[in-house]
Amino acid sequence: MQAEILNVGTELLLGGVANANAARIGRWLAGLGVDVYRQVAVGDNPVRLANAFRRARQEADVVVVTGGLGPTQDDITREVVASELGLPLEEDAEARRVVEGFFARRGAPVPPSALRQAVIPRGARVIPNPTGTAPGLIVECGAGTAILLPGPPAEVEPMLADAARFLLARLAARGEAGTVIASRAFKVAEAGESEVESRIADLLAQANPTFATLAYPGEVHVRVTVKAPKAAEADGLLGEAEGAVRRRLGDLVFAVDEKTLEDAVGQLLCDRKLTIAVAESCTAGLLAYRLTRVAGSSAYFIMGVASYANRAKTAVLGVSEESLAACGAVSPEVACEMAAGVRTLAAADLGVGITGVAGPAGGTAQKPVGLVYVAIADAAGAAATALHLHGDRETVRQRAAQAALAMLRRWILARPAAE
Amino acid sequence: MQAEILNVGTELLLGGVANANAARIGRWLAGLGVDVYRQVAVGDNPVRLANAFRRARQEADVVVVTGGLGPTQDDITREVVASELGLPLEEDAEARRVVEGFFARRGAPVPPSALRQAVIPRGARVIPNPTGTAPGLIVECGAGTAILLPGPPAEVEPMLADAARFLLARLAARGEAGTVIASRAFKVAEAGESEVESRIADLLAQANPTFATLAYPGEVHVRVTVKAPKAAEADGLLGEAEGAVRRRLGDLVFAVDEKTLEDAVGQLLCDRKLTIAVAESCTAGLLAYRLTRVAGSSAYFIMGVASYANRAKTAVLGVSEESLAACGAVSPEVACEMAAGVRTLAAADLGVGITGVAGPAGGTAQKPVGLVYVAIADAAGAAATALHLHGDRETVRQRAAQAALAMLRRWILARPAAE
Repeated sequence: MQAEILNVGTELLLGGVANANAARIGRWLAGLGVDVYRQVAVGDNPVRLANAFRRARQEADVVVVTGGLGPTQDDITREVVASELGLPLEEDAEARRVVEGFFARRGAPVPPSALRQAVIPRGARVIPNPTGTAPGLIVECGAGTAILLPGPPAEVEPMLADAARFLLARLAARGEAGTVIASRAFKVAEAGESEVESRIADLLAQANPTFATLAYPGEVHVRVTVKAPKAAEADGLLGEAEGAVRRRLGDLVFAVDEKTLEDAVGQLLCDRKLTIAVAESCTAGLLAYRLTRVAGSSAYFIMGVASYANRAKTAVLGVSEESLAACGAVSPEVACEMAAGVRTLAAADLGVGITGVAGPAGGTAQKPVGLVYVAIADAAGAAATALHLHGDRETVRQRAAQAALAMLRRWILARPAAE
Repeated sequence: MQAEILNVGTELLLGGVANANAARIGRWLAGLGVDVYRQVAVGDNPVRLANAFRRARQEADVVVVTGGLGPTQDDITREVVASELGLPLEEDAEARRVVEGFFARRGAPVPPSALRQAVIPRGARVIPNPTGTAPGLIVECGAGTAILLPGPPAEVEPMLADAARFLLARLAARGEAGTVIASRAFKVAEAGESEVESRIADLLAQANPTFATLAYPGEVHVRVTVKAPKAAEADGLLGEAEGAVRRRLGDLVFAVDEKTLEDAVGQLLCDRKLTIAVAESCTAGLLAYRLTRVAGSSAYFIMGVASYANRAKTAVLGVSEESLAACGAVSPEVACEMAAGVRTLAAADLGVGITGVAGPAGGTAQKPVGLVYVAIADAAGAAATALHLHGDRETVRQRAAQAALAMLRRWILARPAAE
């Protein structure tokens, strides 16, 4: 099955906003085993949208369209798609419920203009929109399918699960002799793409399952995609492929599919019944935020301190004035004292300290932008590791938090589990 | 003059990376007065790239291609463009100098494979690449032009000035001294899209400048786009449009273009010479992280405490056991004690406290998921505001941090500036 992504919105062509939907829907389709052969963005222009939609339909089995579903006159996607497919536009009761539900949840009256969003191509299925007013639509046209989603990425996200159920059913029901495509991603944080590629070089040459590496900031994903006549066979192949990946990558694989590095660390902390506290200078809250993205993290996360000013390091965390004066705030000594200090303050099993130069200013020849120390402390003491990170301020901070999570995972794995 | 942006790279379709070049080149072309009518991304596939390039040539005067200029077999842009235009590929002395120059700057020998990048379509002009190995190319074909740039956005940026000189000369030679398109975005955090739309309803009906609203999580942007024969006139129109927007939205506009809400708050804190400390329960570091995304934030950000466990609230922030027992951790009383407590701990001018139910568990009838209290404390005391937020755990946390920043901005604006 081949797909095209069609993003509608003049702002995308002017470059005022990044096209977040293109990337998100690309990942989503790849995860479903659907090939994307092209992504196109056009402005809020009926003729250009009609041309782009016509071409997409000719060449793709599924066209995923984002944008242009709102209530204003600029929102032309429903009209253009209906016209291209020769379908009349009609008010739909279910679509109307989606629109009215949005305003009911807010205790507000429904503006008459909003009901334009309930007028949809005849026969289209409605995808509820939990966070916005515009219903999503699935329109079948001959052998093909158009999935219409709203423009705001935050509205799109919760609608993808419904759209995925439909697409998976289509994939299962399709004439490709009932070919099932299944896919799984294995995530690695402690090795770069070239190292991962070289470890699984023999697998990358295979055809079914196919193996591919994808590099993300601070992570490499190995995506396995299998095709089989039946779901049970696909599952079997996927299980074999997982074994092959894990034999080559071992415990470098920290998580599978949508699980994150903070999920993996949280699971380990839960399993080992360990609690944690973090002290952050250059990342200033990012590690705490990531650790607490996990539902249920209150079982192990006690507290975080974003000790930006030196007096926060000394007065709250108990970092010594001597270490700050002799070694500087960015030093393994201060990282260790931060980790040990926050551990004591929180009465936690583990403490993490992060201090570094995020930039753009503050770098020196000895301590350049990108130098970050991460320390982990337990009852036996603390040890720091130096990181040399590249990129701008935001990248250095993201990579430092990612590295701290990976080190935390490695630290816990290296300790024997309690009986 | 009409342009198409054509981005080459399988990773763009898989969504592993955002298509930064599409947005950057869109802004660049708009600034030169060139209309972009379509942006297309295809994978590293010669047939699909050839089809996309052929279509782009048919419909656009300028095709800007990014990606596929590197030294590996995956890099197919030079070959496909040459073949489509019927031009032979030849080694070019200037292109060779660009490739050799890259390695000479690093004191490294030139790998033989790198010289593939000096083999270019006959007659193409070379754009030097100050930060990478692949020369950019300008290829003229009949009435049209193809501008080929490398994939890494950091390499593209310094090459745009050369490409712009060429494009402006082409515009002048066509007797189309160019229409300049300029655009500006005004950001609002304290009103929803429908309120913003109703305030600027008269502007939304206009043609040049055009006004459009775009909704983001916790923000609405008003984008103004003007066209004029000359840059000075475009600037004038934009200035008038800005006045029209500001008359209708007043100080609801917190920032323009790429500036963020944390930039706006940081600027106010700097201007008023105020320092700040934050205590976060449900957002647990997110507000501290956002405040410190701003370069130079160490001038005003003293510390943050992610007080997840109750004992972190009592032992570190001095929240009273009585308040926790009588009112619960999610209460205006505890929010105020957190704000006042962290302010005292950090010896800061302002303290912020955030406590709430982020979900998915932990909600009750009285205190449902999405109930968040934000308190601001100063020397005179503390006051809390209740928020009722919708969405999943991540959305509630993001919206709570966004609302806290907006309240902080409003709080500072409501105080007279020091003389």
